Amino acid sequence: MPRAVRERQMLDAAVRTFARHGYRAASMDRIAELAGVSKPLVYLYLHSKDELFTACIRREAGALVAAVRAGVEPGLPADRQLWDGLTAFFTHTAENPDGWSVLHSQARTHGEPFAAEVAAMRAEITAFVNHLIGDAARAARCDPHLADREVAGLGEALVGAAESLAAWANDTPGVTARDAAATLMNFAWPGLENLMKGERWSASAGFRPPAGSARTPGPPAP
Amino acid sequence: MPRAVRERQMLDAAVRTFARHGYRAASMDRIAELAGVSKPLVYLYLHSKDELFTACIRREAGALVAAVRAGVEPGLPADRQLWDGLTAFFTHTAENPDGWSVLHSQARTHGEPFAAEVAAMRAEITAFVNHLIGDAARAARCDPHLADREVAGLGEALVGAAESLAAWANDTPGVTARDAAATLMNFAWPGLENLMKGERWSASAGFRPPAGSARTPGPPAP
Repeated sequence: MPRAVRERQMLDAAVRTFARHGYRAASMDRIAELAGVSKPLVYLYLHSKDELFTACIRREAGALVAAVRAGVEPGLPADRQLWDGLTAFFTHTAENPDGWSVLHSQARTHGEPFAAEVAAMRAEITAFVNHLIGDAARAARCDPHLADREVAGLGEALVGAAESLAAWANDTPGVTARDAAATLMNFAWPGLENLMKGERWSASAGFRPPAGSARTPGPPAP
Repeated sequence: MPRAVRERQMLDAAVRTFARHGYRAASMDRIAELAGVSKPLVYLYLHSKDELFTACIRREAGALVAAVRAGVEPGLPADRQLWDGLTAFFTHTAENPDGWSVLHSQARTHGEPFAAEVAAMRAEITAFVNHLIGDAARAARCDPHLADREVAGLGEALVGAAESLAAWANDTPGVTARDAAATLMNFAWPGLENLMKGERWSASAGFRPPAGSARTPGPPAP
């Protein structure tokens, strides 16, 4: 059997074992048995438990980023791109719950080197989201006040919301990927769209159009 | 000097040291020196590095939850409660960057027992937020489809967004607590308000009022 196939089997077994038993309790014996190979072969290919864990994180992070990128078609309307990206993200995390658990829980809980691997993936997804929000804002001839820094803050908020929701969805029976995507879409899009139009909330007046806007106020409520 | 005062000095020194040097590199010598006490006294009061770290997490978690609760006045309009809660949260994390770093980064990176302490605090904040969203939805005579499970998903999304934004704000020079609160308010409130009115996004039609709504469509765009 080619080395690449064997390695994939080992990583499949390792992701499953790390996710379900935790990094500490996961044993190389169990991983080798689950992969159907000898323990010395695991050490020969992946060297140590730490390197095996790092290889798992990198593979799962790469697959998640690739799934989100593949789900979004540039050039479509911004709300459609966001919906497609969220759907791709939650579908991937729902279909790969062990991979998501390794990235979201295990990798961040067992020391800085592993947490740094996840932080790199997170930075890549956040940059992708910021790009999407920035493009959409430009396409909407947006509020000039929606500065790069605010776009960056919105990207952080959206990524943090998605991470949190994916963990909750995977732990809550009956919540589908589509449910999670719809919840976050309904939560996130109206605010993003308002910001692109320059509408901001104020403690004194609630939401209002930007100062100097050409819009006239609507008729008073009946 | 009373024991309570000594302990507070030790915890202040420990939070600062864990946040700035990381859990592993933090030494009991450094913490004792910074607190102005002898190392045996630290061991006498707090027993071990692990117990000291756990005491730091509990103190900082309790202070954060108390700050958010104190910031929100029940009975005010929902948008005002959300704004006040976000302002209290980001003000606390900005004024206590070391405490926030212990909770958000250090505690989650160094093993399950510490991560579980933070998860308990997070569950408390999420329950508080869910309660706020649920109350607001009921006050708005909300969409009957905004079920408890969707409220729970929205709470997860909001808490995840706030955590992510607080870490980013503390790492980004010039972003104030008010900036972070405004970004998240502008991001989160329009979607929550729409959901309370029963308006949901659909891939075919964008946002629309609920089926069977009494509203009539507006005039066509010119």
